[in-house]
Amino acid sequence: MSEEYTKRLWLEEDLADDLKWSMMVKNVMFSGKSKFQEVDLIHTGPFGKTLFLDGKVQSSEVDEWVYHELLVHPAMVMHPNPKSVFICGGGEGATAREVLRHKSVEKLVMVDIDKVVCDFCHEHLEVNKSAFESPRLELINDDARAQLEAYPGKFDVIIGDLADPLEGGPCYQLYTQDFYQNVVLKKLNPGGIFITQSGPAGILSCTEVFTAINCTLRSVFPRVLPYTQHMPVYCDVWGWNMALTDPKQAEISPEEMDRRLAARVEGEMRFLDGATFEGLRALNKHLRGCLAGETCIYTADTARFIHGSVAAGNKAGTGANGSS
Amino acid sequence: MSEEYTKRLWLEEDLADDLKWSMMVKNVMFSGKSKFQEVDLIHTGPFGKTLFLDGKVQSSEVDEWVYHELLVHPAMVMHPNPKSVFICGGGEGATAREVLRHKSVEKLVMVDIDKVVCDFCHEHLEVNKSAFESPRLELINDDARAQLEAYPGKFDVIIGDLADPLEGGPCYQLYTQDFYQNVVLKKLNPGGIFITQSGPAGILSCTEVFTAINCTLRSVFPRVLPYTQHMPVYCDVWGWNMALTDPKQAEISPEEMDRRLAARVEGEMRFLDGATFEGLRALNKHLRGCLAGETCIYTADTARFIHGSVAAGNKAGTGANGSS
Amino acid sequence: MSEEYTKRLWLEEDLADDLKWSMMVKNVMFSGKSKFQEVDLIHTGPFGKTLFLDGKVQSSEVDEWVYHELLVHPAMVMHPNPKSVFICGGGEGATAREVLRHKSVEKLVMVDIDKVVCDFCHEHLEVNKSAFESPRLELINDDARAQLEAYPGKFDVIIGDLADPLEGGPCYQLYTQDFYQNVVLKKLNPGGIFITQSGPAGILSCTEVFTAINCTLRSVFPRVLPYTQHMPVYCDVWGWNMALTDPKQAEISPEEMDRRLAARVEGEMRFLDGATFEGLRALNKHLRGCLAGETCIYTADTARFIHGSVAAGNKAGTGANGSS
Amino acid sequence: MSEEYTKRLWLEEDLADDLKWSMMVKNVMFSGKSKFQEVDLIHTGPFGKTLFLDGKVQSSEVDEWVYHELLVHPAMVMHPNPKSVFICGGGEGATAREVLRHKSVEKLVMVDIDKVVCDFCHEHLEVNKSAFESPRLELINDDARAQLEAYPGKFDVIIGDLADPLEGGPCYQLYTQDFYQNVVLKKLNPGGIFITQSGPAGILSCTEVFTAINCTLRSVFPRVLPYTQHMPVYCDVWGWNMALTDPKQAEISPEEMDRRLAARVEGEMRFLDGATFEGLRALNKHLRGCLAGETCIYTADTARFIHGSVAAGNKAGTGANGSS
Repeated sequence: MSEEYTKRLWLEEDLADDLKWSMMVKNVMFSGKSKFQEVDLIHTGPFGKTLFLDGKVQSSEVDEWVYHELLVHPAMVMHPNPKSVFICGGGEGATAREVLRHKSVEKLVMVDIDKVVCDFCHEHLEVNKSAFESPRLELINDDARAQLEAYPGKFDVIIGDLADPLEGGPCYQLYTQDFYQNVVLKKLNPGGIFITQSGPAGILSCTEVFTAINCTLRSVFPRVLPYTQHMPVYCDVWGWNMALTDPKQAEISPEEMDRRLAARVEGEMRFLDGATFEGLRALNKHLRGCLAGETCIYTADTARFIHGSVAAGNKAGTGANGSS
Repeated sequence: MSEEYTKRLWLEEDLADDLKWSMMVKNVMFSGKSKFQEVDLIHTGPFGKTLFLDGKVQSSEVDEWVYHELLVHPAMVMHPNPKSVFICGGGEGATAREVLRHKSVEKLVMVDIDKVVCDFCHEHLEVNKSAFESPRLELINDDARAQLEAYPGKFDVIIGDLADPLEGGPCYQLYTQDFYQNVVLKKLNPGGIFITQSGPAGILSCTEVFTAINCTLRSVFPRVLPYTQHMPVYCDVWGWNMALTDPKQAEISPEEMDRRLAARVEGEMRFLDGATFEGLRALNKHLRGCLAGETCIYTADTARFIHGSVAAGNKAGTGANGSS
Repeated sequence: MSEEYTKRLWLEEDLADDLKWSMMVKNVMFSGKSKFQEVDLIHTGPFGKTLFLDGKVQSSEVDEWVYHELLVHPAMVMHPNPKSVFICGGGEGATAREVLRHKSVEKLVMVDIDKVVCDFCHEHLEVNKSAFESPRLELINDDARAQLEAYPGKFDVIIGDLADPLEGGPCYQLYTQDFYQNVVLKKLNPGGIFITQSGPAGILSCTEVFTAINCTLRSVFPRVLPYTQHMPVYCDVWGWNMALTDPKQAEISPEEMDRRLAARVEGEMRFLDGATFEGLRALNKHLRGCLAGETCIYTADTARFIHGSVAAGNKAGTGANGSS
Repeated sequence: MSEEYTKRLWLEEDLADDLKWSMMVKNVMFSGKSKFQEVDLIHTGPFGKTLFLDGKVQSSEVDEWVYHELLVHPAMVMHPNPKSVFICGGGEGATAREVLRHKSVEKLVMVDIDKVVCDFCHEHLEVNKSAFESPRLELINDDARAQLEAYPGKFDVIIGDLADPLEGGPCYQLYTQDFYQNVVLKKLNPGGIFITQSGPAGILSCTEVFTAINCTLRSVFPRVLPYTQHMPVYCDVWGWNMALTDPKQAEISPEEMDRRLAARVEGEMRFLDGATFEGLRALNKHLRGCLAGETCIYTADTARFIHGSVAAGNKAGTGANGSS
């Protein structure tokens, strides 16, 4: 009987103007509300416990480990010895959780604008609870750009775990050339690395924001390393762009990556290792062509809008509020 | 006004018991019906002209080139000089189209059980029309296994473009150890290669059939090379398994693949090149673990059912009728 | 197999902001387009052949006879001897069909703004074909108000078969006090009757437009007779208001209605007879209260908008274009 | 933001095989589970607080008063002086609430099989709370037939507030000729009246069970009085059949009904009065024809199944478990 019933409550998401999907809802576990957004933890059939902000999927227990391993560890292991890390957004706590697995990390600053989301995730997401309670974590609820600019000292790794750069959206300014040039680059130590989630990167969706973020970073950093991976809960391939101040760091062999992961990180990776990353950074011909052909650089004036895209606007972290 | 209206006609597909999606329908272009199945060509919003068999997506114009380049060309270029090719299923015509781009091919035999589907695709799929009319193509509408066994001589490349091996489904027997051992292997010339589409291969779906097909092939062939790629229209990563009678052929460098593609194939690839394939065959750690842990070998008695899976039962070619 | 497929193509209609329904589509029979709207004839599972204008249900073969018997015959039989009839809107042809069943009718003028709709329905709606070809019918494709004002002579019965009076919609002005006072009343012969479809009239929806149309008519005519009936295809109870210049005509007994129907109309009624109408005009306490409490009179300045209502905006006839 | 989100959680109901609707969910208020069924109180957009058993709508705050006034009061006022009443099913409590408004009632026995449902409704349905706590109510959680047979003495009015008679369903036997003849009739005092909800009674749905229930009752009682009313939450017209042991009682005038309602019942009716009932019992020609043509009598052997019907299987009370 329960089966019958639970099949009938559905959460519907628009993947595009002309494509929508519905996931079965087993249980609405918790709901909260901040002055910025609604927060819901819903047990869905296909994706297990799933976090929603304003009704949009942020992450699910069946695949969040893929996203967060890929956001955090490639940059961390390419850096020779990351001691200080800054997260823009990330209120869910999983990005912090992965960073804190690195024994080298002495200080982690995480700035997410929405205290309610952070408190909600701290309370309800069991797997991230210890990260929120780590003495190495400094959690600030404020505008990410302002805090990064004002924070004393510099960082070895800066992580962008923010919502996609929608025109008029709260995070657009955190993807601009100006932000990268005048804030991120200046707050990185020598040899520092910046990594940012970069939106959908499938063959039909990669030019929405992924290629423009890449192009913008290339206008500021000497080396940008894009990579992609399918994320079931976003119904698309997802993209990341890593920007290095020292280009040589990108030339790490799979074996060296495996050695560093083993030496520096507590516990096992589930998704990532040297061979995996070798595959993910080897982009397909179509995607390489789209990156090569991209000319858009995000500035305060120029925007590339996500519109009507597969999985547009979904994700990431609580980045939607990483900045006011 | 038209906009308003066309937004209201939707084609709904069950991706799993607890996940469904709906694509906007712009136009039902053509409909036909054979004794085996319904055939429809529908202009959908997100995927353009899309072919359905019994209401299930077979292929769409926005991404069929990805699927068919990956099904055909890696095997064709790993073979030193493919002159004769056999396709099990493939009634849509796109697999034949890609095979016939290889100048070395002198004879292509395609056996699809459903004449109505072949005629429908010949008439309505403009991009495949010339393939159907090639003098190098011999098209037979019959059971693929019976025809392959009976066909005089052997082949350099055999291609499985069939529906997934559902228990009780029409194609299950074309994925068994018995078929691979006693039909495919015997009908391959020395140095011959077998390639088969292998169902969903995402992190949540790879153990449905992908790993078992791989395991079954490994019990017969000395070298099996799996690779995967996201297909938007199937809402998942898709898998292929290539089985080589000569293991050395798998060790082709990206540069050599590029050279062979350039030398042997008419026209440009859109998706595939050496670097692309290098990435696709480098599977991620999770997938490698699933392949390593698989013990299921498909026999007449043992089946691994696709059930309740994301994209389960979708695809491939008109393979659903490659065999009675 | 066909069964499986046809279950998957759905036409979705918003019944309200928070309620939508989907009817299975068996076949898109015909599609056309005028400068005013899209016209589609779709074979749906629950309602059979169904006519849509701009994707909104107009009528279906399983229940259009209920609507059209109730729109036409009560007024026609309350009139002692209707010879001349005018239809505002009605391009579907079914209202004309019912009027022409009355042997007394010598002249029927029908003014629908959309020639394409009229031609489409003439061609594709078999049951209305002979009505379109009747020598007693004069069909004009123009603005209904302008034509009614300008038409030489007066009418015994005037029928409003128009879309609901949405603010800013094309038909709003055909529901105003000004139109009733200065056009309809002046173009009715002594003892003439005006009848208009009046939108949803369910317990949750009757105050959308039904009660205001009633109130507006009461400000002009000495007697207004409202009645209602459930229409499956509109997912609601529907309402009509009859306005009489001679109040005594409303006091017809069920037996007299049966006698007149038998004497004057060709063929049998399927839904209506004296006893039926006696039930329909006996409104329930809730509805009577809503009518009694209504104070809104539609003028050029004052509108009562249909918004977010169950079945809002659906229907009626091709009235959406009865007036420009 | 909240608006955006709440629009995305939908409860989907199959109205038929080829028709489904989805109501927006504002909030899942309470959920419970018995050994018989799931119980949920969900705040939906279109219908307010809505009670579901096993995911099927039972009643909603926007229209339950219509259903329950029509189930209870016509029979109660046609009886000259109802002192003892028996309810089969009715666990929601609203039927009891309406019965207890009659000052003449000294004893009300309600037998619903599901204690969990009764407790849930007692706790969560504010409008029915005082009914559950009335000293005149005797609530028994057991099989309705067994209890009615065994209960000492007879009743003035017996009310069937049960789920529709689906073949193999739990309530089928409570709609059979045997039950009516050998239990209901024997447990009615002289002049006693039996009233039962009778499923959908729309022009497309009336022959599902409504006409057969009527036909079955006519084979046992000297007078059966059917009536119908549209219920928005069931997406159809609903039917009731009243069976009288004294045919003369049915000939009550509207004025007499109004007098009795005023004299006997506490508070005002919202939907029912004499004029309302006069309209509801005046069935339309189509429905009268269906009733006249019905020959099916429900026996232990003969069933008329509800299948694929609009609103089939919905409702009523917790009758689904009124009998084991």
